[in-house]
Amino acid sequence: MDVIPAIGTLDEFRALIQTIPGPSLEAQKMTTEREGLLTKPPGSLGRLEELSAWLATWQHRSPPRMEKPACAVFAGNHGVAAQGVSAFPAEVTAQMVGNFAHGGAAINQLCRTFGVALTVEALRLDEPTADFTQAPAMEEAACVEAIRIGMRAAEKVVGEDCDVLCLGEMGIANTTSASAIGLALFGGEAVDWTGRGTGISAEVWSHKATVVRQAVEKHKAALTDGLEVLRCLGGRELAAIVGAVVAARLCRVPVMLDGFVCTAAAATLSPLRAGVLDHCSIAHVSAEPAHRWLSELLGKHPLLELNMRLGEASGAALAVGLLRGAVACHTGMATFAEAGVSDKETGRT
Amino acid sequence: MDVIPAIGTLDEFRALIQTIPGPSLEAQKMTTEREGLLTKPPGSLGRLEELSAWLATWQHRSPPRMEKPACAVFAGNHGVAAQGVSAFPAEVTAQMVGNFAHGGAAINQLCRTFGVALTVEALRLDEPTADFTQAPAMEEAACVEAIRIGMRAAEKVVGEDCDVLCLGEMGIANTTSASAIGLALFGGEAVDWTGRGTGISAEVWSHKATVVRQAVEKHKAALTDGLEVLRCLGGRELAAIVGAVVAARLCRVPVMLDGFVCTAAAATLSPLRAGVLDHCSIAHVSAEPAHRWLSELLGKHPLLELNMRLGEASGAALAVGLLRGAVACHTGMATFAEAGVSDKETGRT
Repeated sequence: MDVIPAIGTLDEFRALIQTIPGPSLEAQKMTTEREGLLTKPPGSLGRLEELSAWLATWQHRSPPRMEKPACAVFAGNHGVAAQGVSAFPAEVTAQMVGNFAHGGAAINQLCRTFGVALTVEALRLDEPTADFTQAPAMEEAACVEAIRIGMRAAEKVVGEDCDVLCLGEMGIANTTSASAIGLALFGGEAVDWTGRGTGISAEVWSHKATVVRQAVEKHKAALTDGLEVLRCLGGRELAAIVGAVVAARLCRVPVMLDGFVCTAAAATLSPLRAGVLDHCSIAHVSAEPAHRWLSELLGKHPLLELNMRLGEASGAALAVGLLRGAVACHTGMATFAEAGVSDKETGRT
Repeated sequence: MDVIPAIGTLDEFRALIQTIPGPSLEAQKMTTEREGLLTKPPGSLGRLEELSAWLATWQHRSPPRMEKPACAVFAGNHGVAAQGVSAFPAEVTAQMVGNFAHGGAAINQLCRTFGVALTVEALRLDEPTADFTQAPAMEEAACVEAIRIGMRAAEKVVGEDCDVLCLGEMGIANTTSASAIGLALFGGEAVDWTGRGTGISAEVWSHKATVVRQAVEKHKAALTDGLEVLRCLGGRELAAIVGAVVAARLCRVPVMLDGFVCTAAAATLSPLRAGVLDHCSIAHVSAEPAHRWLSELLGKHPLLELNMRLGEASGAALAVGLLRGAVACHTGMATFAEAGVSDKETGRT
């Protein structure tokens, strides 16, 4: 893969998005053909078969490979936290980054369990984005910087030959950001886009929904495309996720998105080019209610439904187990001919 | 664990079922307490937290352990296959057992991926059960023998210190058996209990539903309890699963049930004693439509929904990934105090 050009403006990033490669239909076809020869009733591995084909299509390689999964978690702080929209104080973002570094968080255990290489990028935690009820969360320069950090993080793990890139986030108050992005991109009612986050009371939830509604109203005129939605209502870690999604596509690496915040970040790309998220799967449907229809609006069906709502790429790391299982079956199973098993169609061994 | 007494009759097995141990509420409580101290919002790992508590409860140990998962797959042949209810010929059962032995089947790859020790027990493949449209599938002696084989297989893996026992099956025509068991246990319409199995045509499906209906009608008078349902409408591999479920409970090992056939087998125990399946989880909801409501009727919510319909314990082995993730988080994560992360309730580190 060629080096990805460095971007200096959002317009340069918009232009870069237009250069992303399409699927490898050849790898997809080869994978589907082999799948049909394996010793099982056709289609009986269900979504595991779809995952093998999806990996092959976006790895541009058949058979697909799942030896080196990687995970990038981005952390950022949000000015809107000052509005009292979270159950936890803002300093928890930095404390949890420390916890990641010491191996004490859920994502550390899950990456270890599934053999996933973990990278954590903390983005200027001492400089929260602006409170987007008052001003755009980021100036263009800050948004571009965060996108670039995400791109560089993706390039780095890709340089280490990774087979799938799991993405996740940490940032106190960032479900407020995700809800505002969902409302701005797809319309509807603020209350339907707003959930309980890390566990807020009904009273705080009601206030959070008001914050979401007012923020989207305030910036309405500026929200001319997905990247402006990201800039005005997002956060540094969300912008980094956007950069990583695009860089992974350029590098021919499939992406496993985590939950609500991660999906909302990626969704800001969807208006910019048809199929821009085709190399992304959604790992799990979060307990945040809006995540289900956000996934549907993107035409995606999350792999797991376990009532999780932690972030940190925890669902994405868990989904690597499914990817490992899918690829192990696809590459390791015997064909009907090899195993001397009678085929359904012919009745012959 | 004491040696499980050998059973010689179904009545002795009925008596044994009355001796099964209850849950360890102490282990459950300790696990729930630790869960609340870990560096994440309360409940944010969703069903992973439930799995940790469930494992602890039925392993009678806190913290729970997931170092040695095991899997037992039972294979049997069915006289009802002569009715032309499957897309595959009956000899495929033995051929697939050969494929298991040579490591070429899906279950081999999945067990390898998730570090699960695999045992396969072929039960008199050259002596199919009777065609249950004509006679009870098994005489009492044959049913007891198969239950005993299942119990012994479970005892053996338990002797090797296993942490969860995954159960699965292989047997051409055994979804017909599972459908008949569901209809006999829970009532309803044969068409609602009958699915496409390994992939039959609409015409064959219609015939299969008729076979299911007629079989249950024929044996109605004999179906006096769950074990009579198992004897008249089951098969050797289903009876072995029943034996393994009970033996695992006696040995304090949680059980991961696979799909429709495996769940139907276990369901024959449910009328015999309240809570007899409390140590069992269902790994995935199968593409066989009846599996969803069979699970609901048993008060269970399958962990995965991936449109799989292979059997072989494939879904159960895949679910071991979730168990490994759950236990890794529960045992490996730092507490708020250890990590110096501010707690939600106190705002203090």
